[in-house]
Amino acid sequence: MPVNLAAPVPESLLPVAGVRLGVTMAGIRKAGRRDLVVFELAEGSAVAGVFTQNRFCAAPVQICREHLAAGEGIRAIVVNTGNANAGTGADGLARARRSCDALAAVAGVAPRQVLPFSTGVIMETLPVERIEAGLPAAWAALRADGWAEAAEGIMTTDTLPKAASRQLQIGGRTVTVTGIAKGAGMIRPNMATMLGFVATDAAVDAALLQPLLREAADLSFNRITIDGDTSTNDSFVLMATGQAGHAPITTLDSAEGRALREAVVAVSQHLAQAIVRDGEGATKFITVTVQGGRDEAECRAAAYAVAHSPLVKTAFFASDPNLGRILAAVGYAGIGDLDQGLIDLFLDDVHVVREGGRHPGYREEDGQRVMKQAEITVRVDLHRGAAAATVWTCDLSHDYVSINADYRS
Amino acid sequence: MPVNLAAPVPESLLPVAGVRLGVTMAGIRKAGRRDLVVFELAEGSAVAGVFTQNRFCAAPVQICREHLAAGEGIRAIVVNTGNANAGTGADGLARARRSCDALAAVAGVAPRQVLPFSTGVIMETLPVERIEAGLPAAWAALRADGWAEAAEGIMTTDTLPKAASRQLQIGGRTVTVTGIAKGAGMIRPNMATMLGFVATDAAVDAALLQPLLREAADLSFNRITIDGDTSTNDSFVLMATGQAGHAPITTLDSAEGRALREAVVAVSQHLAQAIVRDGEGATKFITVTVQGGRDEAECRAAAYAVAHSPLVKTAFFASDPNLGRILAAVGYAGIGDLDQGLIDLFLDDVHVVREGGRHPGYREEDGQRVMKQAEITVRVDLHRGAAAATVWTCDLSHDYVSINADYRS
Repeated sequence: MPVNLAAPVPESLLPVAGVRLGVTMAGIRKAGRRDLVVFELAEGSAVAGVFTQNRFCAAPVQICREHLAAGEGIRAIVVNTGNANAGTGADGLARARRSCDALAAVAGVAPRQVLPFSTGVIMETLPVERIEAGLPAAWAALRADGWAEAAEGIMTTDTLPKAASRQLQIGGRTVTVTGIAKGAGMIRPNMATMLGFVATDAAVDAALLQPLLREAADLSFNRITIDGDTSTNDSFVLMATGQAGHAPITTLDSAEGRALREAVVAVSQHLAQAIVRDGEGATKFITVTVQGGRDEAECRAAAYAVAHSPLVKTAFFASDPNLGRILAAVGYAGIGDLDQGLIDLFLDDVHVVREGGRHPGYREEDGQRVMKQAEITVRVDLHRGAAAATVWTCDLSHDYVSINADYRS
Repeated sequence: MPVNLAAPVPESLLPVAGVRLGVTMAGIRKAGRRDLVVFELAEGSAVAGVFTQNRFCAAPVQICREHLAAGEGIRAIVVNTGNANAGTGADGLARARRSCDALAAVAGVAPRQVLPFSTGVIMETLPVERIEAGLPAAWAALRADGWAEAAEGIMTTDTLPKAASRQLQIGGRTVTVTGIAKGAGMIRPNMATMLGFVATDAAVDAALLQPLLREAADLSFNRITIDGDTSTNDSFVLMATGQAGHAPITTLDSAEGRALREAVVAVSQHLAQAIVRDGEGATKFITVTVQGGRDEAECRAAAYAVAHSPLVKTAFFASDPNLGRILAAVGYAGIGDLDQGLIDLFLDDVHVVREGGRHPGYREEDGQRVMKQAEITVRVDLHRGAAAATVWTCDLSHDYVSINADYRS
C-alpha cells in the first residue's frame, strides 16, 4: 500500500505547449498492458538529461548520452517497460539503435534526434521487433493531454502512476511544468531516478537547462532511497519547448529564473517522493534530516546510512522505537572524526538522544507514538557545523521480500 | 535454519593451556539464560584486539582500547549479553568501568588488566549491578574445558553456538588454537566481528600478535556481511598464553610462524563463516569472488556491493536466477573506469555472462539448478588485472524481517 499517495487525477495534469504523448500496448513482456510510450517535442525544444552513475549502465542510457551530445535537437522519445535492455552487451546497443531508427522513421526526424529509454528486467534480450511494430500506433495516439496515460505506461512494479504539474507566471504569460516518473525498487539513484520526465513550455536558454536539471535532480531524485540499489537505467530528462510566449530566460539568477527553478524543483520533488511512497512494500514514509555537519556531503552520507540500514528500516516497519540502530548507522557513515558525545537525535518532536546517550526525559511510549505514524521525521544533529541534508526513504517490510523474490515469476 | 552449521561437539573444542572460562546466569535481560562469561588468562599472556570502526562505538570498546594500550598485561575478560552498553554516553563508560573493577577484585588483578565486552540491545542502561552480583559465581565456575558453554553464553540472536579448534606441532610440542564467536545480525564488520575470541597456547613474541590478528581478521571477519550494518560493538581478540612449551616464535615469516598463522586463520574463518551460516533468516550460504581486478580493494568493493544488494539477496532467497541484479551491483560498486564489455559472470560452474552480455550458451535451467543449492559461489571476472577478493554472505528472507521487526519484543 503506497503511503499517502493517490493516483493523479488526469485533469490535474496540465498539458505543456509543444509536447504530445502517445501510449500503446506493444506486448513487450506481457500482453494487454500499456508498455510503450512516445513523446513528441516541438521543433526548437531544448532537452537535458542526467543518467545513472552505474558503470553497468543500460544500452539506452549509452545512446541517450550520445544523442544528447550530438546536439541536433531532440524531437522524440521512446520508452518501453518490461525489459531494461541492460547487461545485454553489443547486441543490446544495436537493438536500442533500432528502436530509435524506427521512431525516427515514423516521426520524420533523424535517429540522433530520438532518445530511447527502457525499464524492466535486466539481462534479457530486448524484443525490439515488438517496439517497431507498436510505434506507429503509439505515434498515431499522440495527444497533448496524454500525461496521465503516459505515467501509467512507464510503470513496472509501481502500484500507482506518478505525475505532477505546477503553473507560474513569467512576463505575463502562464508557464506550465508537468512531469511523470516511475520506480519502486532498485532505487538509490546516483544522479537521477529510474525514469523521470519533466517538461515545461517556458522559454529558457538551452545552456541553462543542464544546470537547472542537475539542481532539480540533486534536490529530488538524488535524495531518495528504497533499497540502496542504484539501477542500470536511471534517467531524468528536462524538456523546455519555449512555447509559452514570454521573453526567454537568460539567467537562473533572476526573478523569472528563480520562479521556474522553484516550479521544476517542486514537480521533481513531488515525483521523487511519490517513488518512495510507492516503494516496494513500503508502509511508512520517512524523512531523514542530518544537521549540524561540517559540510553537506557528510550530512548526506549520514542521512543515507540511516536511510539504507536494514535494521533501521525493519524497526520502522515494526513501529519499534529501537532507536540505537539509528545511532549505529550514523556511527558507520564514514565521518572519521565524529564525536558521539555531541549527538542529538529527535523523532519528530521527541528528543530521544542528548550528547550521545539516551535523553533522561525520553519515554519509550513517546517514541512508540511517533513510530506508529505513517510519516516520520528522523532528525540527527551532529553539532559540528552549520550544514544540513535531507533524504527520503521508506521502511523494509515482508512485502519487499515477497515482491523481489517473486518479481520475475 | 542455519545453513550447513551444527552446534560444535563440546569434545571437539580443545582446551588451551593457560585459559579458563566460566559462565553464569546473571539475569541481565532475561532470567534463566547464560548471559555472563569470564575468561582467566595465565600471567604472561599476550593479548591483541581489533575493534569496530563505527564512530558510535560502545563504551566497552572504548575501555578495551584504553586497557590494551595501558600494556599492563591482560589477565581477565568479562562478556555480557542482553545489553550492548552502546549509545549510553558518559554513564555507559562509568558502568563499563565498574564491571572491570568488579572482575578485577574477584580475580585479584588491576582493573586495567581486564577487558570488558557487551552485546545486545543498543541505547539501554547496562544493569551493571547484576554483572557485579554474577561475577563471583562465574569466576568460581572457571574450567579449562569451558569453551562450549562460553560459546553459548555469548549468544544473542544466534540460533547456534560457534566454536572451533585446530592443533599443530611447533618444536615438537602440540599447540592448540581454539576460538568462539557470536553474531547473526548487524553484521558488516569493518575491522572485526560482533564478538570473536581466539586463544592459543603458542609462545609468540607479543609484538607479533597484533599483525597476526589483523591478518586473521582481514581474511575472516572482515570478509562477511549479513545486512551491511556495522555494529557498535564489533570486537575480535587474540590471546597467546605461551604455555605450549616450545621456543617462542619471533617472526611470522618462519615455518613455525606460518603454521601458527594458518591455524589462527582457519579457526577465524570457520567462526566468521559460522556467523554467516547462522545469519538472521539465512537459507543460503553465498561465496562471492571477484577476480581480474586492478587491486584487491576494488575486488572487495565489488564483492561487497553484490553481497549487500537487497535485490541480489532476495533473488537468492527465491532461488530465482535474476542475475542481472548481480551485474547492476558490480556496476555501482564505485569502480570509476570499469568496462562492462569485459565482464564475465559465473554461478558455480555455469557461465552466465560473457563480455558484459548474456552468454549465448546460458540456459535459465542451469542457473535455476545452482540457485536451488544451499551453498552457491558467485564469481565475477573484471578482466582488468590480477587481483581477487572473496566475501561470504547469506540471502535476505522473510525471516530476516520478522527477526528484526520483533527483536526487542
